Amino acid sequence: MTLPVTIVADAACCATVREPRVGVEEAERIAHVFKALGDPTRVKLLSLIGAGEGGEACICDLTEPVGLSQGTVSHHMKLLAEAGLVTREQRGKWAYFAIAEGALDAAAASLRML
Amino acid sequence: MTLPVTIVADAACCATVREPRVGVEEAERIAHVFKALGDPTRVKLLSLIGAGEGGEACICDLTEPVGLSQGTVSHHMKLLAEAGLVTREQRGKWAYFAIAEGALDAAAASLRML
Repeated sequence: MTLPVTIVADAACCATVREPRVGVEEAERIAHVFKALGDPTRVKLLSLIGAGEGGEACICDLTEPVGLSQGTVSHHMKLLAEAGLVTREQRGKWAYFAIAEGALDAAAASLRML
Repeated sequence: MTLPVTIVADAACCATVREPRVGVEEAERIAHVFKALGDPTRVKLLSLIGAGEGGEACICDLTEPVGLSQGTVSHHMKLLAEAGLVTREQRGKWAYFAIAEGALDAAAASLRML
């Protein structure tokens, strides 16, 4: 009788590889959100919006505290919006931003998946 | 009697600017952690480590699941270690990584500051 034999090439290494909890698409989604959060200016912008009256802020109020032009701030806000972290509402001349409901909780929840 | 008068240059805009909850150094620190998390490979690596036996993984077990060379994986692990997200322990030939205790909770807590 012959038994099948599995050759372990380097038995000293390693612990069992288990299935990761996060799949490829999920990893892409999580990374997209954290990439948006991975910039000090964007962190400060989110903090300003969160501290704003009614949890929102006009773009015109965001430029001075971060010391950047409106164009640059708009670019940062676009990245935050694309990552689903903020919502944008045009009111006449000005764009107002609010932190997207549940977005920060969802980001925190994705950390618990790791 | 003369009363002090504050001229509001553009009264249509805006809501009161409040002090952001996050200072400059805090924003830098938070962004550093999230920048490390802002890459799908690094998210997957953290997930693999978290799912590993005893909550750790040998570098030799991380290369195949992400389909990258050991050099590239080492670079990603270095960024995660620098951001305080993982700890590294050399055991003979191999480096073992574990998710740094409390690191993901701290990252989640910083989201609640925003």
